[in-house]
Amino acid sequence: MRHCTACGNTVTKVIPAGDNRLRVVCTACAAVHYENPKLVVGTVPVFAGRILLCRRAIEPRRGFWTLPAGFMELGETLAEAALRETREEALAEVGLGALFSVVDVVDAGQVHVFFAATLAVPEFGAGEETLETRLFSPAEIPWADLAFASNRIALEQHLACSQSGNWQVQLAAAPRTRPG
Amino acid sequence: MRHCTACGNTVTKVIPAGDNRLRVVCTACAAVHYENPKLVVGTVPVFAGRILLCRRAIEPRRGFWTLPAGFMELGETLAEAALRETREEALAEVGLGALFSVVDVVDAGQVHVFFAATLAVPEFGAGEETLETRLFSPAEIPWADLAFASNRIALEQHLACSQSGNWQVQLAAAPRTRPG
Repeated sequence: MRHCTACGNTVTKVIPAGDNRLRVVCTACAAVHYENPKLVVGTVPVFAGRILLCRRAIEPRRGFWTLPAGFMELGETLAEAALRETREEALAEVGLGALFSVVDVVDAGQVHVFFAATLAVPEFGAGEETLETRLFSPAEIPWADLAFASNRIALEQHLACSQSGNWQVQLAAAPRTRPG
Repeated sequence: MRHCTACGNTVTKVIPAGDNRLRVVCTACAAVHYENPKLVVGTVPVFAGRILLCRRAIEPRRGFWTLPAGFMELGETLAEAALRETREEALAEVGLGALFSVVDVVDAGQVHVFFAATLAVPEFGAGEETLETRLFSPAEIPWADLAFASNRIALEQHLACSQSGNWQVQLAAAPRTRPG
Protein backbone atom coordinates (compact mmCIF):
# COMPACT_ATOMS: atom_id res chain seq x y z
CA MET A 1 0.00 0.00 0.00
CA ARG A 2 1.62 3.22 -1.20
CA HIS A 3 -1.28 5.67 -1.59
CA CYS A 4 -4.20 6.82 0.54
CA THR A 5 -7.59 5.44 -0.53
CA ALA A 6 -9.28 8.66 0.60
CA CYS A 7 -7.14 11.34 -1.08
CA GLY A 8 -4.52 9.56 -3.22
CA ASN A 9 -1.47 11.05 -1.51
CA THR A 10 1.39 8.91 -0.22
CA VAL A 11 1.19 6.94 3.03
CA THR A 12 3.69 6.12 5.76
CA LYS A 13 3.76 3.80 8.78
CA VAL A 14 3.35 5.41 12.21
CA ILE A 15 1.71 4.54 15.54
CA PRO A 16 -1.38 6.79 15.71
CA ALA A 17 -2.25 8.56 19.00
CA GLY A 18 -4.15 6.18 21.28
CA ASP A 19 -3.00 3.14 19.31
CA ASN A 20 -0.18 0.71 20.10
CA ARG A 21 0.96 -0.59 16.72
CA LEU A 22 2.23 0.66 13.38
CA ARG A 23 -0.55 1.60 10.95
CA VAL A 24 -0.58 2.84 7.38
CA VAL A 25 -1.39 6.57 7.71
CA CYS A 26 -1.78 9.21 4.99
CA THR A 27 0.91 11.92 4.97
CA ALA A 28 -1.62 14.47 3.70
CA CYS A 29 -5.10 13.80 5.18
CA ALA A 30 -3.96 11.62 8.17
CA ALA A 31 -6.50 8.87 7.37
CA VAL A 32 -5.56 5.59 9.10
CA HIS A 33 -5.81 2.47 6.93
CA TYR A 34 -6.27 -0.74 8.93
CA GLU A 35 -5.24 -4.11 7.52
CA ASN A 36 -6.82 -7.23 9.04
CA PRO A 37 -6.78 -11.00 8.50
CA LYS A 38 -9.08 -12.42 5.81
CA LEU A 39 -11.45 -15.36 6.11
CA VAL A 40 -11.14 -18.37 3.79
CA VAL A 41 -14.21 -20.62 3.99
CA GLY A 42 -14.74 -24.12 2.64
CA THR A 43 -16.35 -27.53 3.06
CA VAL A 44 -15.44 -31.19 3.49
CA PRO A 45 -18.06 -32.69 1.13
CA VAL A 46 -18.86 -36.35 1.81
CA PHE A 47 -20.73 -38.88 -0.34
CA ALA A 48 -21.15 -42.44 0.95
CA GLY A 49 -18.09 -42.20 3.22
CA ARG A 50 -15.85 -40.68 0.55
CA ILE A 51 -14.52 -37.09 0.53
CA LEU A 52 -14.63 -34.77 -2.49
CA LEU A 53 -11.37 -33.02 -3.36
CA CYS A 54 -10.50 -30.63 -6.20
CA ARG A 55 -7.20 -30.48 -8.09
CA ARG A 56 -6.25 -26.81 -8.46
CA ALA A 57 -6.09 -25.24 -11.94
CA ILE A 58 -4.60 -22.00 -10.61
CA GLU A 59 -1.65 -20.77 -8.62
CA PRO A 60 -0.69 -21.00 -5.84
CA ARG A 61 -0.24 -24.79 -5.74
CA ARG A 62 -1.56 -25.56 -9.22
CA GLY A 63 -1.98 -29.33 -9.69
CA PHE A 64 -2.33 -30.06 -5.96
CA TRP A 65 -5.48 -31.28 -4.24
CA THR A 66 -7.64 -29.02 -2.10
CA LEU A 67 -10.94 -28.91 -0.30
CA PRO A 68 -13.32 -26.50 -2.03
CA ALA A 69 -12.66 -23.17 -0.28
CA GLY A 70 -12.02 -19.52 -0.97
CA PHE A 71 -12.18 -15.95 0.29
CA MET A 72 -15.39 -14.92 2.03
CA GLU A 73 -17.05 -11.95 0.31
CA LEU A 74 -18.83 -8.92 1.77
CA GLY A 75 -22.59 -9.40 1.87
CA GLU A 76 -22.61 -13.12 2.61
CA THR A 77 -22.65 -15.35 5.70
CA LEU A 78 -20.01 -18.00 6.41
CA ALA A 79 -22.49 -20.69 5.36
CA GLU A 80 -23.29 -18.85 2.11
CA ALA A 81 -19.57 -18.50 1.38
CA ALA A 82 -19.00 -22.22 2.00
CA LEU A 83 -21.88 -23.22 -0.30
CA ARG A 84 -20.78 -20.75 -3.00
CA GLU A 85 -17.16 -21.94 -3.02
CA THR A 86 -18.25 -25.59 -3.19
CA ARG A 87 -20.54 -24.73 -6.10
CA GLU A 88 -17.87 -22.70 -7.94
CA GLU A 89 -14.92 -25.06 -7.49
CA ALA A 90 -16.57 -28.50 -7.42
CA LEU A 91 -19.90 -27.79 -9.22
CA ALA A 92 -21.51 -29.53 -6.25
CA GLU A 93 -24.59 -28.74 -4.16
CA VAL A 94 -24.08 -29.81 -0.55
CA GLY A 95 -25.99 -29.74 2.71
CA LEU A 96 -23.96 -28.12 5.47
CA GLY A 97 -23.18 -29.78 8.79
CA ALA A 98 -21.07 -28.49 11.68
CA LEU A 99 -18.56 -25.66 11.44
CA PHE A 100 -15.89 -27.91 12.97
CA SER A 101 -12.45 -26.69 11.84
CA VAL A 102 -10.84 -23.27 12.37
CA VAL A 103 -7.19 -22.90 11.35
CA ASP A 104 -4.99 -19.87 12.01
CA VAL A 105 -2.78 -19.20 8.98
CA VAL A 106 -0.86 -16.32 10.51
CA ASP A 107 1.86 -15.95 7.88
CA ALA A 108 -0.75 -15.43 5.16
CA GLY A 109 -2.89 -13.14 7.34
CA GLN A 110 -5.79 -15.59 7.05
CA VAL A 111 -8.17 -17.69 9.12
CA HIS A 112 -9.51 -20.83 7.40
CA VAL A 113 -12.94 -22.17 8.37
CA PHE A 114 -14.37 -25.53 7.27
CA PHE A 115 -17.87 -27.02 7.46
CA ALA A 116 -18.79 -30.68 7.33
CA ALA A 117 -21.00 -31.19 4.27
CA THR A 118 -23.00 -33.91 2.55
CA LEU A 119 -23.62 -34.64 -1.12
CA ALA A 120 -27.09 -36.16 -1.57
CA VAL A 121 -26.09 -37.46 -5.01
CA PRO A 122 -22.61 -38.02 -6.54
CA GLU A 123 -22.93 -35.07 -8.90
CA PHE A 124 -19.88 -32.81 -9.19
CA GLY A 125 -17.39 -31.49 -11.71
CA ALA A 126 -14.49 -29.13 -12.31
CA GLY A 127 -15.18 -25.40 -11.95
CA GLU A 128 -13.04 -22.74 -13.65
CA GLU A 129 -10.32 -22.92 -10.99
CA THR A 130 -10.28 -26.75 -10.91
CA LEU A 131 -8.58 -29.34 -13.14
CA GLU A 132 -10.52 -32.34 -11.86
CA THR A 133 -12.70 -33.37 -8.94
CA ARG A 134 -13.02 -36.82 -7.40
CA LEU A 135 -14.11 -38.76 -4.33
CA PHE A 136 -11.48 -40.29 -2.04
CA SER A 137 -12.02 -42.90 0.65
CA PRO A 138 -10.16 -42.04 3.89
CA ALA A 139 -7.41 -44.51 2.89
CA GLU A 140 -7.03 -42.86 -0.54
CA ILE A 141 -6.58 -39.23 0.61
CA PRO A 142 -3.50 -37.84 -1.22
CA TRP A 143 -1.81 -36.47 1.90
CA ALA A 144 1.48 -35.74 0.14
CA ASP A 145 -0.25 -33.87 -2.67
CA LEU A 146 -2.53 -31.57 -0.68
CA ALA A 147 -2.29 -27.89 -1.62
CA PHE A 148 -2.28 -26.32 1.85
CA ALA A 149 -1.52 -27.21 5.48
CA SER A 150 -5.06 -26.17 6.42
CA ASN A 151 -6.41 -28.91 4.09
CA ARG A 152 -4.41 -31.53 5.97
CA ILE A 153 -5.55 -30.19 9.35
CA ALA A 154 -9.23 -30.01 8.35
CA LEU A 155 -9.14 -33.53 6.87
CA GLU A 156 -7.41 -34.98 9.95
CA GLN A 157 -9.93 -33.26 12.20
CA HIS A 158 -12.82 -34.46 10.01
CA LEU A 159 -11.67 -38.07 10.31
CA ALA A 160 -11.30 -37.70 14.10
CA CYS A 161 -14.69 -35.97 14.51
CA SER A 162 -16.39 -38.59 12.32
CA GLN A 163 -14.95 -41.30 14.60
CA SER A 164 -15.74 -39.61 17.92
CA GLY A 165 -19.02 -37.95 16.98
CA ASN A 166 -17.74 -34.79 18.71
CA TRP A 167 -17.69 -31.85 16.29
CA GLN A 168 -16.56 -29.18 18.73
CA VAL A 169 -13.99 -26.83 17.17
CA GLN A 170 -10.38 -27.84 17.91
CA LEU A 171 -8.31 -24.74 17.16
CA ALA A 172 -5.23 -25.40 15.08
CA ALA A 173 -2.57 -23.37 13.33
CA ALA A 174 -0.75 -23.90 10.05
CA PRO A 175 3.05 -24.10 10.50
CA ARG A 176 4.69 -20.68 10.56
CA THR A 177 7.73 -20.06 8.41
CA ARG A 178 8.37 -16.47 9.47
CA PRO A 179 9.43 -15.71 13.03
CA GLY A 180 6.26 -15.02 15.10
CA MET B 1 -12.48 4.03 -1.33
CA ARG B 2 -11.78 6.70 -3.95
CA HIS B 3 -8.11 6.23 -4.83
CA CYS B 4 -5.86 3.32 -5.84
CA THR B 5 -3.48 2.14 -3.10
CA ALA B 6 -0.86 1.25 -5.74
CA CYS B 7 -0.72 4.44 -7.85
CA GLY B 8 -3.05 7.01 -6.22
CA ASN B 9 -5.28 7.53 -9.25
CA THR B 10 -9.08 7.32 -9.01
CA VAL B 11 -10.92 4.00 -8.84
CA THR B 12 -14.21 2.77 -10.24
CA LYS B 13 -16.40 -0.31 -9.77
CA VAL B 14 -16.38 -2.91 -12.55
CA ILE B 15 -16.58 -6.69 -12.86
CA PRO B 16 -13.02 -7.80 -13.79
CA ALA B 17 -12.51 -10.47 -16.48
CA GLY B 18 -12.90 -13.94 -14.97
CA ASP B 19 -14.73 -12.55 -11.93
CA ASN B 20 -18.47 -12.43 -11.23
CA ARG B 21 -18.91 -9.42 -8.96
CA LEU B 22 -18.24 -5.71 -8.84
CA ARG B 23 -14.76 -4.83 -7.59
CA VAL B 24 -12.95 -1.59 -6.93
CA VAL B 25 -10.54 -1.24 -9.89
CA CYS B 26 -8.04 1.52 -10.66
CA THR B 27 -8.85 3.61 -13.76
CA ALA B 28 -5.12 4.08 -14.43
CA CYS B 29 -3.15 0.94 -13.46
CA ALA B 30 -6.11 -1.55 -13.40
CA ALA B 31 -5.19 -2.90 -9.95
CA VAL B 32 -8.13 -4.74 -8.37
CA HIS B 33 -8.79 -3.93 -4.70
CA TYR B 34 -10.66 -6.67 -2.85
CA GLU B 35 -12.71 -5.88 0.24
CA ASN B 36 -13.51 -8.73 2.61
CA PRO B 37 -15.26 -9.25 5.95
CA LYS B 38 -13.28 -8.56 9.12
CA LEU B 39 -12.97 -10.77 12.20
CA VAL B 40 -13.97 -9.47 15.63
CA VAL B 41 -12.75 -11.78 18.40
CA GLY B 42 -13.66 -11.84 22.09
CA THR B 43 -14.24 -13.88 25.24
CA VAL B 44 -16.96 -14.70 27.75
CA PRO B 45 -14.87 -14.48 30.93
CA VAL B 46 -16.32 -16.37 33.91
CA PHE B 47 -15.41 -16.20 37.59
CA ALA B 48 -17.33 -18.39 40.05
CA GLY B 49 -20.37 -18.64 37.79
CA ARG B 50 -20.51 -14.92 37.02
CA ILE B 51 -19.72 -13.29 33.66
CA LEU B 52 -17.45 -10.28 33.17
CA LEU B 53 -18.86 -7.46 31.04
CA CYS B 54 -17.40 -4.07 30.10
CA ARG B 55 -19.31 -0.80 29.75
CA ARG B 56 -18.09 0.93 26.59
CA ALA B 57 -16.27 4.27 26.84
CA ILE B 58 -16.23 4.75 23.07
CA GLU B 59 -18.63 4.94 20.16
CA PRO B 60 -20.42 3.09 18.74
CA ARG B 61 -22.74 2.24 21.65
CA ARG B 62 -20.93 4.25 24.33
CA GLY B 63 -22.35 3.46 27.78
CA PHE B 64 -23.69 0.02 26.79
CA TRP B 65 -22.36 -3.31 28.05
CA THR B 66 -20.22 -5.58 25.93
CA LEU B 67 -18.13 -8.71 26.11
CA PRO B 68 -14.44 -7.88 25.73
CA ALA B 69 -13.86 -8.13 21.96
CA GLY B 70 -12.27 -6.30 19.06
CA PHE B 71 -10.76 -6.50 15.60
CA MET B 72 -8.27 -9.30 15.02
CA GLU B 73 -4.87 -7.97 13.92
CA LEU B 74 -2.40 -9.27 11.35
CA GLY B 75 0.33 -11.41 12.94
CA GLU B 76 -1.79 -12.98 15.67
CA THR B 77 -3.92 -16.11 16.09
CA LEU B 78 -7.61 -16.04 17.06
CA ALA B 79 -6.65 -17.12 20.59
CA GLU B 80 -4.00 -14.39 20.82
CA ALA B 81 -6.53 -11.81 19.64
CA ALA B 82 -9.09 -12.98 22.23
CA LEU B 83 -6.54 -12.80 25.07
CA ARG B 84 -5.27 -9.38 23.92
CA GLU B 85 -8.74 -7.83 23.71
CA THR B 86 -9.66 -9.20 27.17
CA ARG B 87 -6.46 -7.74 28.56
CA GLU B 88 -6.92 -4.36 26.84
CA GLU B 89 -10.62 -3.81 27.60
CA ALA B 90 -11.08 -5.58 30.95
CA LEU B 91 -7.49 -5.63 32.28
CA ALA B 92 -8.06 -9.33 32.88
CA GLU B 93 -5.91 -12.42 32.31
CA VAL B 94 -8.06 -15.41 31.34
CA GLY B 95 -7.59 -19.05 30.42
CA LEU B 96 -9.29 -19.87 27.12
CA GLY B 97 -11.86 -22.64 26.70
CA ALA B 98 -13.84 -23.60 23.61
CA LEU B 99 -14.32 -21.41 20.55
CA PHE B 100 -18.10 -21.87 20.80
CA SER B 101 -19.84 -18.89 19.17
CA VAL B 102 -19.56 -17.64 15.59
CA VAL B 103 -21.92 -14.86 14.56
CA ASP B 104 -22.36 -13.50 11.02
CA VAL B 105 -22.77 -9.71 11.14
CA VAL B 106 -23.34 -9.26 7.43
CA ASP B 107 -24.45 -5.61 7.43
CA ALA B 108 -21.22 -4.59 9.13
CA GLY B 109 -19.07 -6.87 6.95
CA GLN B 110 -17.91 -8.74 10.06
CA VAL B 111 -17.77 -12.19 11.63
CA HIS B 112 -17.73 -12.24 15.45
CA VAL B 113 -16.00 -15.14 17.23
CA PHE B 114 -16.20 -15.81 20.98
CA PHE B 115 -14.25 -18.13 23.28
CA ALA B 116 -15.32 -19.44 26.66
CA ALA B 117 -12.81 -18.17 29.22
CA THR B 118 -12.04 -18.46 32.92
CA LEU B 119 -10.69 -15.94 35.42
CA ALA B 120 -8.57 -17.71 38.04
CA VAL B 121 -8.88 -14.71 40.36
CA PRO B 122 -11.42 -11.83 40.38
CA GLU B 123 -8.89 -9.29 39.12
CA PHE B 124 -10.07 -6.93 36.39
CA GLY B 125 -10.52 -3.26 35.63
CA ALA B 126 -11.44 -0.68 33.02
CA GLY B 127 -9.11 -0.36 30.03
CA GLU B 128 -8.91 2.80 27.91
CA GLU B 129 -12.04 1.93 25.91
CA THR B 130 -14.04 0.91 28.99
CA LEU B 131 -15.98 2.97 31.58
CA GLU B 132 -16.37 0.15 34.13
CA THR B 133 -16.13 -3.63 34.33
CA ARG B 134 -18.14 -5.95 36.58
CA LEU B 135 -19.28 -9.51 37.11
CA PHE B 136 -22.91 -10.46 36.43
CA SER B 137 -24.70 -13.61 37.53
CA PRO B 138 -26.80 -15.11 34.71
CA ALA B 139 -29.92 -13.53 36.28
CA GLU B 140 -28.26 -10.10 36.36
CA ILE B 141 -27.15 -9.88 32.71
CA PRO B 142 -28.28 -6.46 31.40
CA TRP B 143 -29.94 -7.82 28.25
CA ALA B 144 -31.62 -4.51 27.38
CA ASP B 145 -28.37 -2.58 27.72
CA LEU B 146 -26.04 -4.80 25.67
CA ALA B 147 -24.05 -2.96 23.01
CA PHE B 148 -24.41 -5.41 20.12
CA ALA B 149 -26.67 -8.25 18.92
CA SER B 150 -23.64 -10.56 18.80
CA ASN B 151 -23.17 -10.03 22.59
CA ARG B 152 -26.73 -11.23 23.21
CA ILE B 153 -26.27 -14.24 20.92
CA ALA B 154 -22.92 -15.24 22.46
CA LEU B 155 -24.29 -14.88 26.01
CA GLU B 156 -27.43 -16.90 25.19
CA GLN B 157 -25.28 -19.59 23.58
CA HIS B 158 -22.87 -19.56 26.54
CA LEU B 159 -25.73 -20.16 29.00
CA ALA B 160 -27.09 -22.98 26.80
CA CYS B 161 -23.65 -24.59 26.33
CA SER B 162 -22.91 -24.34 30.07
CA GLN B 163 -26.19 -26.17 30.77
CA SER B 164 -25.80 -28.87 28.11
CA GLY B 165 -22.04 -29.33 28.26
CA ASN B 166 -22.03 -29.29 24.44
CA TRP B 167 -19.76 -26.52 23.13
CA GLN B 168 -20.12 -27.29 19.41
CA VAL B 169 -20.46 -24.08 17.35
CA GLN B 170 -24.08 -23.13 16.65
CA LEU B 171 -23.91 -20.68 13.75
CA ALA B 172 -26.01 -17.58 14.22
CA ALA B 173 -26.51 -14.25 12.48
CA ALA B 174 -27.12 -10.76 13.83
CA PRO B 175 -30.39 -9.28 12.53
CA ARG B 176 -29.97 -7.60 9.15
CA THR B 177 -31.36 -4.12 8.62
CA ARG B 178 -30.38 -3.75 4.99
CA PRO B 179 -32.04 -5.94 2.34
CA GLY B 180 -29.89 -9.09 1.90
